[in-house]
Amino acid sequence: MDSFITPNELFYKRNHLPVPVIDPETYRLEIVIPGKEAVSLTLVDLKTKFKHYSVVAAIQCAGNRRVDMAAVKPLRGLSWGGTAIGNAEWTGVKLKDVLAYCGLDAEKEEEFPHIHFDGLDTDMEKCYAVSIPTDKAMDPRGDTLLAFAMNGEELPRDHGYPIRVVVPGVAGARMVKWLGRISSAKEESQGHWQQKDYKGFSPSIDWDSPPDFENAPSIQELPVQSMITVPKSGDTFEPGDEVVIKGYSWSGGGRGIVRVDVSIDGGQTWHVANLHPTGQDVRKTWAWTPFTFTFTIPENASSEKIQLICKAVDSSFNVQPDSFAPIWNLRGVLSNAWHRVNLQIVQDKDEAL
Amino acid sequence: MDSFITPNELFYKRNHLPVPVIDPETYRLEIVIPGKEAVSLTLVDLKTKFKHYSVVAAIQCAGNRRVDMAAVKPLRGLSWGGTAIGNAEWTGVKLKDVLAYCGLDAEKEEEFPHIHFDGLDTDMEKCYAVSIPTDKAMDPRGDTLLAFAMNGEELPRDHGYPIRVVVPGVAGARMVKWLGRISSAKEESQGHWQQKDYKGFSPSIDWDSPPDFENAPSIQELPVQSMITVPKSGDTFEPGDEVVIKGYSWSGGGRGIVRVDVSIDGGQTWHVANLHPTGQDVRKTWAWTPFTFTFTIPENASSEKIQLICKAVDSSFNVQPDSFAPIWNLRGVLSNAWHRVNLQIVQDKDEAL
Repeated sequence: MDSFITPNELFYKRNHLPVPVIDPETYRLEIVIPGKEAVSLTLVDLKTKFKHYSVVAAIQCAGNRRVDMAAVKPLRGLSWGGTAIGNAEWTGVKLKDVLAYCGLDAEKEEEFPHIHFDGLDTDMEKCYAVSIPTDKAMDPRGDTLLAFAMNGEELPRDHGYPIRVVVPGVAGARMVKWLGRISSAKEESQGHWQQKDYKGFSPSIDWDSPPDFENAPSIQELPVQSMITVPKSGDTFEPGDEVVIKGYSWSGGGRGIVRVDVSIDGGQTWHVANLHPTGQDVRKTWAWTPFTFTFTIPENASSEKIQLICKAVDSSFNVQPDSFAPIWNLRGVLSNAWHRVNLQIVQDKDEAL
Repeated sequence: MDSFITPNELFYKRNHLPVPVIDPETYRLEIVIPGKEAVSLTLVDLKTKFKHYSVVAAIQCAGNRRVDMAAVKPLRGLSWGGTAIGNAEWTGVKLKDVLAYCGLDAEKEEEFPHIHFDGLDTDMEKCYAVSIPTDKAMDPRGDTLLAFAMNGEELPRDHGYPIRVVVPGVAGARMVKWLGRISSAKEESQGHWQQKDYKGFSPSIDWDSPPDFENAPSIQELPVQSMITVPKSGDTFEPGDEVVIKGYSWSGGGRGIVRVDVSIDGGQTWHVANLHPTGQDVRKTWAWTPFTFTFTIPENASSEKIQLICKAVDSSFNVQPDSFAPIWNLRGVLSNAWHRVNLQIVQDKDEAL
């Protein structure tokens, strides 16, 4: 949290398939709308036919903070701590402008309620393929972009060069990199990461249940989230030390953060953290909201430990749940319970060393 | 939960000021848009100039389930159990159509981001007055109505005759009854119930803090909610009895309910409840979602108590928090922690009686 904007080289990378090498000269984006002629756009077409927009948006993997959930009961997934999120300025053209150009009729949204994205990254014959709801794609307030730049630079290869989709407010898994094809359809994408992954399950469902992926809902918008990034669990302080707590908060669907509560006594009492002023509309907040809270380790801190907690409240007043066990799920996604950090308190830090 | 639709005579009433008597012949709705000529519409104008729509929507008071929060620490507010919610079919005209007719330019939304509603109910000189965001009022998917009928009947006097606003997905306090005036403005309404009530606060803020009402955010969309309506705490069963759990679930902002988890052992394990099929779009769900779960009291139930719990998950995967203390607030609003019902278990019910 040293910077509101995450530098390109520090932004997390989660690529499910090998990163493709794409020649910008031969690159084509295919757009297929039922009942309309298919359209093929070059990179120059995309950059010159449509108005450019820049949007600052956080992208969070649905599996961010999975390690805390895995501590309850083993599960399957990459061991993300709290770093599967980043905040960047994305520049590109609006998906709704491109779809309208290709003949999509917003009035027919109910007939074709899904927009599919196919990546150019493939594993044997199958490509990375997912979908989002058409109403999100076409929402004038939705800000869904086909991005060609990240923080003012050409989109890096690891982040989807030459084009990635940026769907503010939804899970990172829907923001296809190395975008090759867009289509509108009656059904969701049949891609693996739409149908067999990134779905929510009850804590009662384990791999031997077995999970009914077909009927489980796909994750689109993510729930409210926050995390303390500084200090870290195990950091040592002594009575009288000033501690500056730093962290991030964010919620899906453009819901702004209205408050972050911080506890320095394991949840017995709460304090209101200072929110970094981001200038975002509370109903269209795509970037994260950094927070800080400063306190002094009490002189009479007799305990050897102090537990810090943070929990955020978004503009619909949804809050983070208290604990992980009741939201545990077999893929370790949607891991947004309170974040706890245990500090070690010593009477004399120098002596302790 | 005997019926998906709450009958008019059973629908909760929460009127802040005396109920006015309005003559439909002399009734006028005034609409004031800056830079446009003010418009005055009769009841006949409203019913004949605009297309009619019907929307099934739940209305929930922001103070629903306040008693559970008050159990943590005293607070101020009416002692609502879980009945400050109802689900009805509302028929009327779309607010966006009326505003467009009166000259509101949707493109100027950012200039006038608030739509004010003034009721004809007054206490001395002040009327009931609140506001909603213009983007909600004008959203083609927002379904905000000026309603003149409830469940197919003329709007009852207690529910706002002749016109009430129905803003699906937000707190009941914003759905002004006996509507007298609509205006668009740069700022939120200065009405008492917009500025000095229906706001969220940290659990650390009490009346002697004092609460900073001016800078606290107004409640619009409500968080995910659910409640067991049958059985009730204190109901008695014996081993072998079949228990049918019934309840409701709902979330703000049109977010549908994707799952309700039920526990019959105080939260140690969870079961997936059956959701009543309501046929609603998961991204535009205004009505509540009733649920049921049937189980048998174990023959070896040695404990004298069984604790039932329900918790809902909405389409953005927000969940209800585990407990009330961390969401406690001085007005007892936004009370949406898990609902718990304690059953008494006796070995022989007849003997116990």
